[in-house]
Amino acid sequence: MSDVERAAAAVDEARLWRRQMGLARFGATARGGVNRQALSAEENEARRWIADWAAGLGLGIAVDPVGNLFVRYEGRDPAAAPVMTGSHIDSQPTGGKFDGAYGVMAGYEVLEALVAAGIRPLRPIVVAAWTNEEGSRFQPGCTGSRAFVGNTPLEALLEERDGAGMRFGDALEATLDATPNARRLPLGFPVHAYVEAHIEQGPILEQQAKTIGAVTSIQGARRYTVEVLGEEAHAGTMPVGQRKDALRAAVRMITALQDLMADPEDVVKFTVGRLECHPGSVNVVPGRVRFTIDFRHPSAAELARRGDLIEPICRALAGGCAVSVAVNALSAPVEFPAGMVDAVEGVSRALGLPTMRLPSGAGHDAGYLSQVCPTGMIFIPCAKGISHNEVEDATPADLAAGARVLAGVLVRLAGE
Amino acid sequence: MSDVERAAAAVDEARLWRRQMGLARFGATARGGVNRQALSAEENEARRWIADWAAGLGLGIAVDPVGNLFVRYEGRDPAAAPVMTGSHIDSQPTGGKFDGAYGVMAGYEVLEALVAAGIRPLRPIVVAAWTNEEGSRFQPGCTGSRAFVGNTPLEALLEERDGAGMRFGDALEATLDATPNARRLPLGFPVHAYVEAHIEQGPILEQQAKTIGAVTSIQGARRYTVEVLGEEAHAGTMPVGQRKDALRAAVRMITALQDLMADPEDVVKFTVGRLECHPGSVNVVPGRVRFTIDFRHPSAAELARRGDLIEPICRALAGGCAVSVAVNALSAPVEFPAGMVDAVEGVSRALGLPTMRLPSGAGHDAGYLSQVCPTGMIFIPCAKGISHNEVEDATPADLAAGARVLAGVLVRLAGE
Repeated sequence: MSDVERAAAAVDEARLWRRQMGLARFGATARGGVNRQALSAEENEARRWIADWAAGLGLGIAVDPVGNLFVRYEGRDPAAAPVMTGSHIDSQPTGGKFDGAYGVMAGYEVLEALVAAGIRPLRPIVVAAWTNEEGSRFQPGCTGSRAFVGNTPLEALLEERDGAGMRFGDALEATLDATPNARRLPLGFPVHAYVEAHIEQGPILEQQAKTIGAVTSIQGARRYTVEVLGEEAHAGTMPVGQRKDALRAAVRMITALQDLMADPEDVVKFTVGRLECHPGSVNVVPGRVRFTIDFRHPSAAELARRGDLIEPICRALAGGCAVSVAVNALSAPVEFPAGMVDAVEGVSRALGLPTMRLPSGAGHDAGYLSQVCPTGMIFIPCAKGISHNEVEDATPADLAAGARVLAGVLVRLAGE
Repeated sequence: MSDVERAAAAVDEARLWRRQMGLARFGATARGGVNRQALSAEENEARRWIADWAAGLGLGIAVDPVGNLFVRYEGRDPAAAPVMTGSHIDSQPTGGKFDGAYGVMAGYEVLEALVAAGIRPLRPIVVAAWTNEEGSRFQPGCTGSRAFVGNTPLEALLEERDGAGMRFGDALEATLDATPNARRLPLGFPVHAYVEAHIEQGPILEQQAKTIGAVTSIQGARRYTVEVLGEEAHAGTMPVGQRKDALRAAVRMITALQDLMADPEDVVKFTVGRLECHPGSVNVVPGRVRFTIDFRHPSAAELARRGDLIEPICRALAGGCAVSVAVNALSAPVEFPAGMVDAVEGVSRALGLPTMRLPSGAGHDAGYLSQVCPTGMIFIPCAKGISHNEVEDATPADLAAGARVLAGVLVRLAGE
């Protein structure tokens, strides 16, 4: 058997499941989910638990100035750039047990498997728990991976504040104190390659009865806020023809935008997730409506083509209202290198697992890592595609299958 | 000159304006409006000010068990059923200086004019300040007039609570204490006729350059709450074709309802004033939307015909979502007797004032009084039709014109 096969075979489904459920105790909610937001007391406890586990396995841990937590499995050449894996252990406020957590626990399971099988690849293998991927407590998300690759200056990220006014940098102090024995690293280091395991957060794998998704890309996203300004008026007295009804205009705009975004292939993702209507009184014509647009597509050209039409359409349908359209965020699509997709697909097939290629709908730390090294992702199914939800679920067998593919890919990359 | 003409001539524009501005001090807001909600400390102060004014003029005041405040000008036959006028002095939280307040101040100006002109009609004239017309603090509105005419039992109204949990009956104690010298009346008494002066709260009189509106009717209203239940999902991963998007369904429903309510005559009033979208996150497909419908029409048949189609249309367009439609309130249209409309129009023309007939879009205490006596209303223009708004405005000349017509109509009715 090759090292790739031996590493995959050494992955232990029951041990991985225990570790996955062990992590889920930190921030566990009554409804079976997890509330373990970035830099919270719950996350800090989880980090202590991880440090204890790593010490028990004789592995070194390290932290960097943005709180990224690294567990390192030494290679035969300690000076070689490591192969990395990981994800994040912070969750949405009403999150599930698997989003992010799985990628970190799967990475740890690979290290356990390598120890158990006595495999020592050429390159070190490092498992990262990236800080604040979710962005639910501190905006924007992916703080750790963003800082690591130099996408955003650390100084700016440290000044972010949560809803209670707590500064990211101040909350980070307590998090760093949670693992006092961790080596302190400077920000960023060379990485040979990065591969991240994650639940799909969508229904495709389950519907196609595939165990492994070889992720080809992360779709790009554009976000907008549209504000429509009309005029408040008495619902009983102002003739409809004389109104400046901000909600009526917003409904016209949303309907037209849905037409613009109609897609028989069902690739376009178009969502109006937030809509606020002021003053919100049953008998007052709305004077102000604000709504958000989340538009995603794997193709940069489609993002530009349809995205550029959003503002003109809103303007054309404003009627007597004023309208402003703000672009809040724009992330370009990420295309993973063919070699990384091939590696995931190849190992998966070699292990006899039903596999398909698919794009990622959600953003991930892998999107930022792809800016500095060859990057890939491994998806496994989650129940009904539901995520960012306390009922999020995945099977022990699928989790183990993903970890086996991860083990094989990491060992192959670490031998290069 | 007849008494009708003498009473109208004795109305003093400057005195009325001073009184109108005097009342506006109670609950005055920084933006020029009024926050004088029902049974508030601000309203109680206003009642003390009114009691002082009435005492100065030698007039008796009275209160009833629901807090309606009456100022009585005695007739030559004190046993005859009085002619009544009035409106309300409570306001919306961000209300204007004229809505309701004008009808009460105009009534007081008529009493001043009768005193000044030495006119003593056969019947008494009573000016009412009806309790809690607005319904912004305690739902539903028109508490005072509703109780007075026996539409709703007092016991039920006393149990209503405001947003802070304060019981209507408890708040009422302090209000009754504000006028300790007021005579205590039992609830309800015979009324010969009722006529109420009010700002139009719509743009018609201003646009038609008329000073006086002889109100023919109060349109009927139906109110609904529609709740759409979908399923929350990740905006980046869940294919649009597989979503249960509650907002998308709500937008479909609202669009179809606007088509249902389309009216080339522009008589139908259809308003979606409140729309709440949950969870309201930019990257989550909305799982629940609740919106209100306010539908008004002068014709009971049209109210029934179009109103009955609201629920079937919402059901037909729910897609994969669940929908529930609740009817919250239903008020039948009120048709004022021809004799009362003629009286307003006749006095107005006799005074040389530009006059038109028009329906009332808003509900008024007059709607309830019409259940027990011949009732009419006098509208005067307000700037741009804006009401329920701190910028609500009307001119001293128009206020005085309305009070002159009111004086004439009251004197005519009180001579019957």
